[in-house]
Amino acid sequence: MVELRIGWSEYRGRIEKVREEMARRGLDLLLLTNGRHIFYLSHFSHITTERPAVLAVPPDGDLVFLGPMLEVDHLRHQTELVGEVRAYLDYPGERHPIVLFAEWLTDLGYGKARIGADNPAGAAGAYGYTGPPLSEKMPDASFVKVGDVLWEMRLVKSPAEIALIEESAKWGNLAHRLLQEYTAPGLWDAEVSQMASTEASSIMKKTLGPEYEPVLRRAPARAGFRGQVGWKSAMPHSIGIGRAIKEGDVLVTGAGADVGGYNSELERTMIVGTPTAKQERYFEVMVRAQDAALEAMGPGVRCSEVDKAAMKVIVDAGYQDLMRHHTGHGIGLEGHEPPWLDVGNDLELRPGMVLSCEPGIYELGYAGFRHSDTVVITDDGADRITYYPRDLESLTIL
Amino acid sequence: MVELRIGWSEYRGRIEKVREEMARRGLDLLLLTNGRHIFYLSHFSHITTERPAVLAVPPDGDLVFLGPMLEVDHLRHQTELVGEVRAYLDYPGERHPIVLFAEWLTDLGYGKARIGADNPAGAAGAYGYTGPPLSEKMPDASFVKVGDVLWEMRLVKSPAEIALIEESAKWGNLAHRLLQEYTAPGLWDAEVSQMASTEASSIMKKTLGPEYEPVLRRAPARAGFRGQVGWKSAMPHSIGIGRAIKEGDVLVTGAGADVGGYNSELERTMIVGTPTAKQERYFEVMVRAQDAALEAMGPGVRCSEVDKAAMKVIVDAGYQDLMRHHTGHGIGLEGHEPPWLDVGNDLELRPGMVLSCEPGIYELGYAGFRHSDTVVITDDGADRITYYPRDLESLTIL
Repeated sequence: MVELRIGWSEYRGRIEKVREEMARRGLDLLLLTNGRHIFYLSHFSHITTERPAVLAVPPDGDLVFLGPMLEVDHLRHQTELVGEVRAYLDYPGERHPIVLFAEWLTDLGYGKARIGADNPAGAAGAYGYTGPPLSEKMPDASFVKVGDVLWEMRLVKSPAEIALIEESAKWGNLAHRLLQEYTAPGLWDAEVSQMASTEASSIMKKTLGPEYEPVLRRAPARAGFRGQVGWKSAMPHSIGIGRAIKEGDVLVTGAGADVGGYNSELERTMIVGTPTAKQERYFEVMVRAQDAALEAMGPGVRCSEVDKAAMKVIVDAGYQDLMRHHTGHGIGLEGHEPPWLDVGNDLELRPGMVLSCEPGIYELGYAGFRHSDTVVITDDGADRITYYPRDLESLTIL
Repeated sequence: MVELRIGWSEYRGRIEKVREEMARRGLDLLLLTNGRHIFYLSHFSHITTERPAVLAVPPDGDLVFLGPMLEVDHLRHQTELVGEVRAYLDYPGERHPIVLFAEWLTDLGYGKARIGADNPAGAAGAYGYTGPPLSEKMPDASFVKVGDVLWEMRLVKSPAEIALIEESAKWGNLAHRLLQEYTAPGLWDAEVSQMASTEASSIMKKTLGPEYEPVLRRAPARAGFRGQVGWKSAMPHSIGIGRAIKEGDVLVTGAGADVGGYNSELERTMIVGTPTAKQERYFEVMVRAQDAALEAMGPGVRCSEVDKAAMKVIVDAGYQDLMRHHTGHGIGLEGHEPPWLDVGNDLELRPGMVLSCEPGIYELGYAGFRHSDTVVITDDGADRITYYPRDLESLTIL
């Protein structure tokens, strides 16, 4: 059977690891407001809004949740790791949730504690949220910002996490294949994206069965153009495009799928119609840059060295002015996360890290060229998890 | 012709208003990192990531942008209101973007300025971003946190903004109609959602023409079940559901569309098959609670009074324990934004405010009941912008 989520024992191991770090830092309690950190420790996934919500990690026993009432049943349904729950009806409420959090934490014995927090405000603070910092309402406690604890843990993926990312890549591959099949002049980018995403999601769900559901509120599998159609492909974070796809367009795609909350990233440069010599040249340099980065990746290699390897190909080809971003980023519960494959990051790659590899070339007014693959660092090198073809012939739509 | 965006003169008016507030507060410069605030002032829409990006509002002249290179062409393409742009290749870079921002701002003459900022860190800080606060790197400048300036402006919508929200409601209505038509026992919730969203988006695009594009990277029009299918409808922020829709299910839906970056919110409780007496009873009380809130809404009425009006119906019916959230929230560029229709919010409603109205009843293990409509406060009352039927007969799927 395909594993569709991280098992409880791995969650318990993560909590133990957090507790070791809490002991090392002399913390009596750890408070998390980041929704993905909360999911990483508890398997409780929720939509972060203006309503303050906190997962508290005590030195032993069950986890504690403080948050809005609309998440309580939802949390009980998703996790067995949380014991005590205290909830307010809604934000801002007749008494502000942060005031209640301070009272509840004091009541639970942490009024004078040394508290680590990813965010001493005590609230993720989306959508125009306002409120006093929790630290201000607990004057006898001391607060230490410890955002790095969870990010450090999330940096290296376990075999179970890598298996979920591999499963994600499989369905991203299907979504991308359908996207390529459906792409044709005269269709609008979002139409093709939605058709491919709908069909891939439906097949994915039917294949994986009733146990499967996306962990975040999004399509199970998805593929699209990210607005990178024609001359807009030159803008790496383009958003929409008003016109239909047409002959001669360069398209930059993106595909992935949610498996147990984990993502993969697959991006390809496709060309509609017979490529021109200029398109071929840019495409070829882009692929060589990606090859150089892929070859550079491995345990003990600095992130900066990987970025430099890709940049060297682009600079040597004379396209230095056409670079718009670095080579890649970590991937896991987020679409982007540390570590960064950037000249400024001397962190060494370690086995189990999972990263995108995606150097690109962008000429304003003309087109952009980028493939992105998801790569896992192994004990003796690096494996490409995404396996969609990368060559021009396979990516030409005639 | 349908207006699909806010015109430049309105953007210029917003900037003037910000400048008046800057003068009132004695600020030499205003820095914004919130992506929607940036869009609200400049029409530049971008995806907020780990890469620091700041829109600076000087006391006169064009706006200034500091950010990653991958957004520069994108910004130039979207806005005519930004003059000076300074960009770094990527984050973290050999020199941290915040260090560069400090140098650039000093170079522009703000080294000793009194600077207002929605976020003195100088970066939105997503995805495990780390960096020194900008205020630390500009020791001779003084920083004042002024997050409220933009939120206060965004609280009341202009006629042009309301027109976009009304246009959004039209396409949300289509998406919801298709969702209802496609809903049938045996189909999985995401399948129905994707089919309805794909078709509604395609028709919307074909109707509005080449000028139309969604401002954020999402489907133009969308409708779905938000995971609220069967017993999971009792969890207001449910995410996924593993099983297919079946006879007897209560479904809570959600629909909307992106028009010029503005949203509307339409949610309905639908029942698959002939409603039971219990379903009818909950449905009837929920509609009465919404009616009471809708009737209460108008200029000069406190947000808390609207929430109390809805709660009174629910409490009088004996369902106090089945409340899981307050009556509604503002809506505009965000799905949720101030003002909050909450017992704890004594802010008075003003003409031009746009809010959701959505009291609900939730019985764990059984079902949830909630309609949401988008309402605009007028000079002498309140108008419902969403117009999908609200009665049980219209929402029963036989």
